[in-house]
Amino acid sequence: MTSLQLSAKEEMVEKFLDAAARGDVSQVSTLLSHAPSLINKTGFSGWTALMLAARNGHHHVAEKLLSLGTITSHLSSLHLQQEDFTLCRFRYEDVKDLLQKPSTVMIFLGIEKVKNPPSSSQTVESVSEPPVWFAVNTDEDAAVLLKRCREKNCLFPRSPNRDLLKLSEEEAGIVAQARSVLAWHSRYSFCPTCGSSTRPEEGGYKRSCLNSECRSLQGVHNTCYPRVDPVVIMLVIHPDGNQCLLGRKKVFPAGMFSCLAGFVEPGETLEEAVRREVEEESGVKVGPVCYVSCQPWPMPSNLMIGCLAVAMSTDIKVDENEIEEARWFPRQQVIDSLFRGARPAFVFPPRQTIAHQLIRHWICMNSNL
Amino acid sequence: MTSLQLSAKEEMVEKFLDAAARGDVSQVSTLLSHAPSLINKTGFSGWTALMLAARNGHHHVAEKLLSLGTITSHLSSLHLQQEDFTLCRFRYEDVKDLLQKPSTVMIFLGIEKVKNPPSSSQTVESVSEPPVWFAVNTDEDAAVLLKRCREKNCLFPRSPNRDLLKLSEEEAGIVAQARSVLAWHSRYSFCPTCGSSTRPEEGGYKRSCLNSECRSLQGVHNTCYPRVDPVVIMLVIHPDGNQCLLGRKKVFPAGMFSCLAGFVEPGETLEEAVRREVEEESGVKVGPVCYVSCQPWPMPSNLMIGCLAVAMSTDIKVDENEIEEARWFPRQQVIDSLFRGARPAFVFPPRQTIAHQLIRHWICMNSNL
Repeated sequence: MTSLQLSAKEEMVEKFLDAAARGDVSQVSTLLSHAPSLINKTGFSGWTALMLAARNGHHHVAEKLLSLGTITSHLSSLHLQQEDFTLCRFRYEDVKDLLQKPSTVMIFLGIEKVKNPPSSSQTVESVSEPPVWFAVNTDEDAAVLLKRCREKNCLFPRSPNRDLLKLSEEEAGIVAQARSVLAWHSRYSFCPTCGSSTRPEEGGYKRSCLNSECRSLQGVHNTCYPRVDPVVIMLVIHPDGNQCLLGRKKVFPAGMFSCLAGFVEPGETLEEAVRREVEEESGVKVGPVCYVSCQPWPMPSNLMIGCLAVAMSTDIKVDENEIEEARWFPRQQVIDSLFRGARPAFVFPPRQTIAHQLIRHWICMNSNL
Repeated sequence: MTSLQLSAKEEMVEKFLDAAARGDVSQVSTLLSHAPSLINKTGFSGWTALMLAARNGHHHVAEKLLSLGTITSHLSSLHLQQEDFTLCRFRYEDVKDLLQKPSTVMIFLGIEKVKNPPSSSQTVESVSEPPVWFAVNTDEDAAVLLKRCREKNCLFPRSPNRDLLKLSEEEAGIVAQARSVLAWHSRYSFCPTCGSSTRPEEGGYKRSCLNSECRSLQGVHNTCYPRVDPVVIMLVIHPDGNQCLLGRKKVFPAGMFSCLAGFVEPGETLEEAVRREVEEESGVKVGPVCYVSCQPWPMPSNLMIGCLAVAMSTDIKVDENEIEEARWFPRQQVIDSLFRGARPAFVFPPRQTIAHQLIRHWICMNSNL
């Protein structure tokens, strides 16, 4: 899986939220005096400091936060994502020189949905067509390119892994589509069947071999189309129903545990892939598997397929090539970790990840949270 | 999707079963006099002539079949598959000359499960290791190769599409794995990133570029691993809950209708892929989507992900590049078609396909069949 290092800013938010959750009013005050904007920040769990303080019964912290102006209506925005930046959108005139370059690949993204269809009283002339969006690759300097953009508050994601988590769901979807397809063009410039060069077609969703003798030109071949790599990601539930299996990789931030995951292999079902991966990584045998939800993850083109799985055995034997550690966590420890109780047993994966949603789904199944 | 043409033998079975389902005792008798083995054959629905005659109330046909010796215990074997042939298994000595050829690719399939572990009373010497299985590609003549096989009743699948349906679940799984990975080696002999030659590694589950400067050698790249192409296949339910949407492609056998299906595109979820494909192919808008089950389909390496989907609109507008026709079928027509009632509205897809299982799943959800 992918690395999820924290930025300095994210680390400060997490430190602040931890202090609020632990009831450390003096650290809360100190951090706020350095960075007043912390007051309404949410962390991995999607909760603000006020929510965490209130949930853990730290009334003095809650009072302090309220006195400093916490916006209490944030309590209702639990599932809203915080948008730190928006994607850069350029007009055709601003980037048309890039389109002249032979190395540029342009892919069709889609036509913008019209939220307010024109009323019948409008004349045909006054109705403008909805914009059509494309993505292009470029090796131009990001800072220079940014100056061409007419909109404000735009940035390029610099660390796609982490910055993807800061986008709204819609914008993250656009990046997932654009990044997957552009990464495919970058890695699949040559025909895998004969080694010749290929050229993009069909709005960037096909590449055809330039060697007219190549057998990839006869019939339909997957060599000509972008890849989507299915990955199973699963929360394994203990046979007692009250513990779940989480693992950590060396690249994870300190203390973070998450769901096990792995690529689906040719010839196996999703359910078989879950059973094989869990046994390979942790030694635990799995019985029933239940699909929950999925998430495209454009690193470069994974489709994360989230499942709950019921263990049939409990002894853990970790494959150290894959993960550093795996452990059974009791439900109460998981709840405490999500809500940053007194001594959280582990750090939750970020809330925009499917791992977070799977764990949350499980603890919500039988609880009234 | 794929073509499912019937063989002459399959056509005769279908004709016989149709006659039994319609109560045509004279045709049943005529066909049986030509081919007595028809009596216990099952067709696409998994039902024998006796089952179909009894279910449709044709007592005279049922009596005729019983008098001719239908094995009534077949009534309990509804879900068993009929094995027309088994896969060829060769010993190392029988094929070692093939392994010397430079064009041969050998892939590791797995270690046979030991069904009866040796008892402790056996000495270590008398316990033989479980066999390890590999698959190899070859362009040898199939008939000549077959003579090397020491087992009886073995055949090579000649028409993989159709012959796959005749294998047991376990053997179909072996073919799915072997065919997908060997097809990948055949189509991906060259590095898509730089166009150089590649060589197989890791038991046939990886190919590495032979150009030491290639960036596919730095870090992990999906160019080096076999593809698995996720495909959504969905039964769309009418908003009234009592009809389902089925379509047919020109390549289908006459009268056959099946579920809509399509490849998952980069950046979309399974649920989004279902909604996009249904709207593209049939013009019908889909709301809730629910995963049911999946099936690997090695043509060359698809993973068919089966879903039920609830329609939000009912007008059909077919994309004729994709399908020939799409129609809403009332539940009773679907049941009659499965059980070959008086005038079946369409021919069901074969019972080993996920489309068949999805439609059956739906009609069983609210019925007592």
